[in-house]
Amino acid sequence: MTDLSRFALNQATVRAWSLRQAIEGCARHGVKRIGVWRDKLAECGLGEARRLLRDHGLTVTGLNRAGPFFGVGTELKPSTADDDRRAIAEAAEIGAECLLVFPGVDRRVGDLARSRALTAERIGSLLPEARRAGVTLAIEPLHPMLAGDRSPFNSLRQANILCDELGSGLGIVLDAYHSWWDSDLDRQIPRAGSRLLGFHICDWLAPTRDLYQDRGMMGDGVIDLAGLRQSLDAAGYAGSIEVDLRLL
Amino acid sequence: MTDLSRFALNQATVRAWSLRQAIEGCARHGVKRIGVWRDKLAECGLGEARRLLRDHGLTVTGLNRAGPFFGVGTELKPSTADDDRRAIAEAAEIGAECLLVFPGVDRRVGDLARSRALTAERIGSLLPEARRAGVTLAIEPLHPMLAGDRSPFNSLRQANILCDELGSGLGIVLDAYHSWWDSDLDRQIPRAGSRLLGFHICDWLAPTRDLYQDRGMMGDGVIDLAGLRQSLDAAGYAGSIEVDLRLL
Repeated sequence: MTDLSRFALNQATVRAWSLRQAIEGCARHGVKRIGVWRDKLAECGLGEARRLLRDHGLTVTGLNRAGPFFGVGTELKPSTADDDRRAIAEAAEIGAECLLVFPGVDRRVGDLARSRALTAERIGSLLPEARRAGVTLAIEPLHPMLAGDRSPFNSLRQANILCDELGSGLGIVLDAYHSWWDSDLDRQIPRAGSRLLGFHICDWLAPTRDLYQDRGMMGDGVIDLAGLRQSLDAAGYAGSIEVDLRLL
Repeated sequence: MTDLSRFALNQATVRAWSLRQAIEGCARHGVKRIGVWRDKLAECGLGEARRLLRDHGLTVTGLNRAGPFFGVGTELKPSTADDDRRAIAEAAEIGAECLLVFPGVDRRVGDLARSRALTAERIGSLLPEARRAGVTLAIEPLHPMLAGDRSPFNSLRQANILCDELGSGLGIVLDAYHSWWDSDLDRQIPRAGSRLLGFHICDWLAPTRDLYQDRGMMGDGVIDLAGLRQSLDAAGYAGSIEVDLRLL
């Protein structure tokens, strides 16, 4: 029998399902870990979600997400801090292993260094509250093709530098889809070490037809997932292996 | 009056035009440098192309291209070497400042390190003939979103490493579109130095709608082209600045 103990399902994979349906679906198939999205959590209600997770014996790998810190075509949002604090409280309430941070970028000009600096500042300002709540924040490097509108953190190296700067309470989720191309992973995965909080998988289709939705089923594309898994093993990663694509 | 002395037009920008139309169009607008594609060169004929270039006082920045070295979904092609040698002869004939290399990748598995190694071997085997012909080969890092099907060289760092390995006769064309996201450019542009043979420009649109055709007009996107130009100036780059998008 297949060992599903480290297998996790990111809720985005079954986006048409409510949180209740996703939890019940996982339970039916012996899946014990789930990555949760806040919009689905809000629909379900926090108390009901906690009850469903407990009754079905599921743990939450990550809660998506704090941010974005930038509005579309605007400067840093002044008012997201309240929402980010709510995200921390929700992550604590459902016992999420981490709260993912989705920074966004200032789209008016591609000054990624500046967007990274502003993001670092914002995460730094959230860390004391996250630490008090026992919630670990996580940065997930997104593919360079998303540097123009989604995140100025596009490599594991940049994520490692951010963690160096901000200290404890911040970790990293590595997504094979976003990072598979990066020859620097050989150096950066060992460097990340115990900062690694999650490993998301799907596959890179060649050719890829869409920048946002064309994530492939594992085995249908070109990513050397086994090799990546070995690198994570060697770095001591023992956390979840989370399927994150778009099925429903 | 605008100084067009370093301005170049890549022929892909006006793909609907024949080489004759492109040369005449450049001449009409005071453009003295053109990046040429081999399919258009073949249509025109080598002798006629040389005559048109001379009569209109145009020089050729780069000839596109030697390669791909890999077939779609196949191993390294055994037989491209003949075509690559013809490309070298053509580049010599029209006095191109460089012959661009387009490696392709082995799409059966995304083992980019292996595709890079095989590409290095193939380029290495072409270098003696290129040197004899006085033709400089050029590798252009392509965006990581093209790592699955177009090139395993996706960063200036990788291009620099390749140049270190192969020695004289190989240089680099830097395309803002492919490399703008890379925070390592700060270190890699100075490292590239005199290896820089070309600088292609257009803009990155946010959001971008297509992985292959959605190159924006300069100023319509988020790339800090002025900053990139300054980095190249500081590294001593004095070559052409070549518009490379898809207008016609």
